[in-house]
Formats: sequence, structure tokens, C-alpha cells
Amino acid sequence: MAALDPVLNDIDRDLDNALERLFAFLRIPSISTDPAYAPHCREAAAWLAGTLTALGFETSVEETSLHPVVLAHAPKPGAPHVLFYGHYDVQPVDPLDLWETSPFEPRLAAGPDGAQRIVARGASDDKGQVMTFVEACRAWKAMTGELPCGVTILIEGAEENGSQGLPEWVAANRERLGADIVLVCDTSMWDGTTPAITTSLRGLAYFEVKVTCADRDLHSGFFGGAAANPIHVLSRLIADLHDAEGRVALPGFYEGVRETPPAILDQWRGLGFTAEKFLGPIGLKEPVGERGRMLIEMIQSRPACDVNGIIGGYTGEGTKTVIASQASAKVSFRLVDDQDPEVLARTFEAFVRERIPADCSVEVICYKGSRAIALPFDMPELATASAALQDEWGGAPVTIGAGGSIPIVGDFKRLLDRNTLLIGFGLDDDRIHSPNEKYDLRSFHKGTRSWARILAALRREGQG
Amino acid sequence: MAALDPVLNDIDRDLDNALERLFAFLRIPSISTDPAYAPHCREAAAWLAGTLTALGFETSVEETSLHPVVLAHAPKPGAPHVLFYGHYDVQPVDPLDLWETSPFEPRLAAGPDGAQRIVARGASDDKGQVMTFVEACRAWKAMTGELPCGVTILIEGAEENGSQGLPEWVAANRERLGADIVLVCDTSMWDGTTPAITTSLRGLAYFEVKVTCADRDLHSGFFGGAAANPIHVLSRLIADLHDAEGRVALPGFYEGVRETPPAILDQWRGLGFTAEKFLGPIGLKEPVGERGRMLIEMIQSRPACDVNGIIGGYTGEGTKTVIASQASAKVSFRLVDDQDPEVLARTFEAFVRERIPADCSVEVICYKGSRAIALPFDMPELATASAALQDEWGGAPVTIGAGGSIPIVGDFKRLLDRNTLLIGFGLDDDRIHSPNEKYDLRSFHKGTRSWARILAALRREGQG
Repeated sequence: MAALDPVLNDIDRDLDNALERLFAFLRIPSISTDPAYAPHCREAAAWLAGTLTALGFETSVEETSLHPVVLAHAPKPGAPHVLFYGHYDVQPVDPLDLWETSPFEPRLAAGPDGAQRIVARGASDDKGQVMTFVEACRAWKAMTGELPCGVTILIEGAEENGSQGLPEWVAANRERLGADIVLVCDTSMWDGTTPAITTSLRGLAYFEVKVTCADRDLHSGFFGGAAANPIHVLSRLIADLHDAEGRVALPGFYEGVRETPPAILDQWRGLGFTAEKFLGPIGLKEPVGERGRMLIEMIQSRPACDVNGIIGGYTGEGTKTVIASQASAKVSFRLVDDQDPEVLARTFEAFVRERIPADCSVEVICYKGSRAIALPFDMPELATASAALQDEWGGAPVTIGAGGSIPIVGDFKRLLDRNTLLIGFGLDDDRIHSPNEKYDLRSFHKGTRSWARILAALRREGQG
Repeated sequence: MAALDPVLNDIDRDLDNALERLFAFLRIPSISTDPAYAPHCREAAAWLAGTLTALGFETSVEETSLHPVVLAHAPKPGAPHVLFYGHYDVQPVDPLDLWETSPFEPRLAAGPDGAQRIVARGASDDKGQVMTFVEACRAWKAMTGELPCGVTILIEGAEENGSQGLPEWVAANRERLGADIVLVCDTSMWDGTTPAITTSLRGLAYFEVKVTCADRDLHSGFFGGAAANPIHVLSRLIADLHDAEGRVALPGFYEGVRETPPAILDQWRGLGFTAEKFLGPIGLKEPVGERGRMLIEMIQSRPACDVNGIIGGYTGEGTKTVIASQASAKVSFRLVDDQDPEVLARTFEAFVRERIPADCSVEVICYKGSRAIALPFDMPELATASAALQDEWGGAPVTIGAGGSIPIVGDFKRLLDRNTLLIGFGLDDDRIHSPNEKYDLRSFHKGTRSWARILAALRREGQG
């Protein structure tokens, strides 16, 4: 691969310009879960389309039932073909007052270790990661006039909203998405120096529960002690979600959950994954969750339930003696193995309704769910990419399970019959979904170099 | 009382102008619990001072540690002297989207029964009620050139914020508050045609609990199942506040609570106070609270605990897979008999701290508390006012306990050694502290006439 060195050198040389391009992308507040930001999602799609067209891709912005997708083609007859998937949408930014600087004014800042970080909403999830692949393509084009493989790029705008509309769009556009393998850059490294290829993902089922008692807010002086309080009803319901052993208390919840094989547990034991290491950096010491299980099991191979938000009554400064009419909570479940989000939706709704006093009412909103995903350890592309990553980072990458969910990966298998390589350069302290999200400059730079190497390696593989 | 009839006629004739004056007062958004509205509290005080000066009162606006009080004197040597107390501050207006019209743009609107209502924040609590007394004074001055009794008016601006700063101000200004009796217009009628004199008030202890787990918001995909969730911790704590019998589960909570005497219980049984009558209008059927007690006990003579607000995590539209760093709740207790808010503060904080995992932290903010108050049934002014109310309304007023708390009444007893007559014209459906607060035009009109009569009756009593 005589061509690879100039490409890597060009990536090094052009890093400042690459950062400027990423910053322009990060300035677009493309929050997909809040309808008020829909025009900005469209703006992010247009920006990407412009960028990919300039790189020689045949590009289109296509409608879905929510935000548009960007589709870009650079065919290469005879060479292997990859489908790269990412998302241009980002999480909401609240609580805004905890951001040190405005979430959509990206900046470089030194971290505690002195390393430079790109700080902005979406820096890591997923705009920075998407741009590692785009910049790798740019360098190949600049240095050789072409890409090593055929490349299709599909960037969606609703990943943070359960990829609403995407499976339908993929199903309707199968023939335009032909590829040998799917590449996704939306996961993390094992640590700052060890790359990782993710081979399993937890599923997700997300609900909102709205409890209504009286038909108006009440004065607690008059009605306190006599009128039902929806915050009490909701709190009891949330308290009931887990038993004293830390297990999720929904009937039948653990059906379809398999025990992790002893060999894998042994391998995990060897990783030195301690509570101190995992929870220490976020200010915690004690893992919660099922008693008697390893921490790494809890986040990789066991299901979980978390209340992601709650609101009711007076939440301003000072006091107000009110009994709210309504209180609501957002409740999500991480799923593994064969847990079925549709079965869970029925179980959860029944669990909730049993706990609502006859007098009160409840609405259970069921957002899109996804099953867990496990990818084969024996894909040939896994070994190829693994070697390319080792060339860049110096150490062998580890294959891991990830706690998060990327539902579309299951759809690619189901609809396109293609496996996915999940390779990302995020770090556990990237604060994705949190204030002051960041992406290490090193992740961005070496991530771009990694993709340049992986594309070269996949071509060799295709020729071998 | 030959003078009384022209005074009552003047009140009838001038009603439209009186409404215009009240509307001007209601347009001032004098929310005392939110520091952003402090200038408007000052504006409300200035408006009142202007109004009372124009009526011939010697008026001053005086500083306290929070919002200023308005003090107005109209001495009358040889006549009985009354101290009228009210408040110009109002509750916050959220949730704003449930208001049919802007809370500070007062209007008249017909209720379901066709009767005219004054709709605005503060219409009933307490600006409308304060103006019944001010308008009664205005009519007396207009028709006779003087007031029947000596009158001191004290209007504070922090009642909805626990009367912060007022007891200290009263203690420092004892000699300026000399009076035979205190009059307060901040309570309700028994029903739309039966006036009430309130002779007992529940106390209040109000807390805020802030639970912090991780030092930042977390992605529930990575950390779900392993990291402590403050919404879970807070929900379990709230679920623990009551036992299965509906009793408050804090250790020692019922110490100092006396059983209501059987004779009073018998009297209450005769009132026909049913769940259908009390809870039906707010869309509820089943009373909550201690099993086996009458509903009227629950709101008049038993203590209670309500969570008045809760917030944590993502509360916007759609979904966000976050584990919050912090969640907080506002928790208040209604106190009776000898329950001591300071003892309760210690018990509550210990109860909370016991339930916080070692890893997490909690802040318990203790807002001002007040003990319950019981006024003597044998005050001579009670019989006098009772007769005056009967003249106006046609039926005998009932003496009742009230669920709400007006802490300063206890301070008047303690600091000025004066009893208080609590007479108000609010109705249970006034939606005070709620969206679309209203005050019946009839309450305003006949309330003003009632005070004109009571002032006349107190003078006769003084001369008798």
C-alpha cells in the first residue's frame, strides 16, 4: 500500500482545516427529539450533502417520516463496497446552565491531562465520529483521486429519536444500499489507547407515564390529606420497579435473558474492570443493580431499567403549596438477548395500570423499541479491521459488548442481510448526552487515520 | 346605624369603579417566591400606599428582610381600634399553558352557573379579599367622612413565601400596631351562601430535598444498571413517606396530635360533608389519607404530608437516554395541635438521610415553618361579627377549622397578645394557587358590604 502513507500524511497536515469543517457541522443545533429544531436537522443534512458532493459523491437528501437522510454514492466496480452509517442529529442540551460554554459554539480546550478536546453538543455523538470517516475519504481523494473501495454513505437525522422513519426508508431503498459490509462509527474505545470493535448492543424500550389525579392543581392547605397526589402515585410506581435485590420487578422481565457463558465471564474477570475505574471518574463508588453480579455484566450483558426524567407540581424557586393535577416520568429499559420490546410494552403498561388508584388516570406512551443485537465473532472483515486498528494504535483492539443501543444495526441485518463493524473512537468520559460533551482531538485525528487504514485493508482483503 | 344604609348603597352603586380599582391591583405580577418578580412586589406595595393615602390614611411603605410591608393608620380616639391584615403578594402562575387567559390580565367571565367571576392570579388570594376591606373603608369615608372604628391596615408581601421577615418587623413595631382585635380576610366561606369564621388553622413545614448521585448526567446506555439514579432514590423516599394505612410514616410524627372531641365529630357528621361534595368538583371520588377517619377530619384536624413538586432528568418532549446527576422534590407537612415544625425538621432530615445510599449526597432545605393555631370560641368580637355576617347573607355563619395556614396569626397572638377574626369570602372552587384563579363577583361585592357591616357592629359593640 504505497498510497497509504501520503494519505496519512495528508490527514496530519490538514488537521486544522478538518477541525474547521467539523466546527461548522457542530454549529448546527440539529436536535432531533424536539420539533422546534426540525429546520436545523434539515440544515445539517444540507451541510453534509454539500460536503459529500464536493468530495465527488453522488449525493441526495431524501425524506423520511421524520428528518431527512443523506445518501451519497461513490461506486468502484470490482472493489469491495462498504456502507457507512452515522447520524447528524444530536441530543437535547438541557440542563443548559451546566454547560461551561454554549453547546453549539464548538471550541478546543485542554482537559485535566493537558490533551486537547473538542467541546460541543455532538462532538462525540455522532458528528465528530461521522467526520472521521468523511475526512478519511477526503484524504484518499486528495492524494490518489479515488477511494480504495466503493463507498455508500448513509447519514440519518433521527438516531437520538429511535431512528424514527429509517427502517421504512431502508426497506424501500434496499437496492441502493448494496454493500459487502456496514461500517458504523458511533461507539467507544476500550480506553484512551486501546481501540475496540463492538460486537453486541443492548436493545431499548422507552416509555412515558403520565398520571392525572384531580382535574386541576389544588391548594395543599385545603385538599392536603384528602385529595390524591399524582407525585405520590408515580413515586410508589417507580419504587416498585426494582426489588430489594436490585432486580427489575416486572413479571416475566427476565424471560429471554441468557446467562453469560462462563468462558466470557472468565475473560471479563481478567479485564480489571473495577467499580473504582468505571464509577470513580463520575463521582460514584458503589454499583447498583442485581446483587452478586460483576459490574461489567451489569452494563454489557444484563438488562436494566432507569427513570430518565420526572416532573410534576411546582419546580421553581422557593415554595408553592400545591397538589399537582398531573405528574409524569420517562422510563426506559435496556434489553439483552431475546427480550422482546413489544412484550415488555404490554407488561409495563399492565404493571403501571395496576398501581393507579381507581380515581386517577394514566397515559402510557410507548416510544420506539429495539431488540438487542449480537454480531458474529467470525466475520472476515473483523480480523481485517482489527489488524488495521492495531497498525494505527500499536495495541490489539478488544471485542466488547456495548451498553447503548443502535437499533438500525439490527435492521441492516434483517433488511439488507449484512453484518456491521462497529468501530468508534469515543471515550467513556466524553459526556455524550450530558453537558460539556467533548471528543478528544486525538480521537478525531487518529480516528480519521484509522478509517484511512481500514479502507485500504478492506481493499486488500477484497483483492486477496 | 342610620349611616350604614347609605354606605351599603354606595358600595352597590360604585361596584364597577371598585372592580376597575381591583383590576389595576391584579395587573401587578407581585409573585413573592421568585426573586425575578421582586420589583413588582415593590410596585404592588406602592400602588396600595397610593390608594390608602387617597382614602385619608397616614401611610408608609416599610422595608423588611424580603418584600416591603404597607402600613396605614386612621386613628379614632374613643372608638374600638381594628388591625386589618392581608397580603399583596401572589403565588407563581405555572403551569402557564393551563391558563385560559393571561394571569395578570384580569377579566370578568361567567361561570358554569352563569354568575360573574373575576379571573386573575390573586383574584381570591388575596388581592380581591384585601380590596373588600379597603372598599368598605372607602364607602364609609365617602358617605360619612370618617371610619366607624379606628383602623390600622398592614399588608405584607411575602405571605406566599412563609411571611419571611414579617414576624421580625411586627416585633420591632409593636407600639404602632396597637388594636383591640385583628381582622384577616384570607379564608373561605362554608359554601356559596353560608359565611364562615375560621377558628383554627393548620401549621406548615416546607422542605426541599435535593439528591445528587453521579457528578454529571450520564448516558443510560453506558451506565444504566450500574450507576445510582437519583430519581429512583427520591421516589423510594417519597414512597416511604406514607404507610399502607395512609398514615405519615415519620417516626414520632403523630406526637402532639390530639383526637378531635366526640362532640365536635358529631357536629361535623351533621354537616353532610361528603367525598362526592368535596372531591367531586375537582374530578375525584376517593379520599386518600388515614384509613377510618372522616374526610372533614382529614382536612381540618389531622396532619398531612404532600409532595408539592418534583423534577429530575429529561423533561422535554420525546426521549433522552440520560441518568440524571440530580433530582429534587418539595415536600410539605400540614401540622395540627402541638406538632412542632422544628422537631419535624430534625425528624424529616434524619428520615431522608437514612434513605440516601452511602455513595450519593443530599441537601435538605428547610423553609419557614409555622405551628397550628386555635382561636378562642368565646371572643366577644366573634359574636358581633357573626351577627353582622348574618345580616348580610341571611344565614348564620359557621365556625370552622381551615386546612391552610396563615402563620402570622400566631405571631399576632404571641407578639401583640391579640386575637384574630378570620373572615373571608373565598369559595372552595376559587382555584387559588392554580391556573385560572377566580373570585366570584358576588364574593367581592357582598364581602365589601360584610366588612362595612362588621365595622359598624364593632363600633356599636365598643359603645355598648
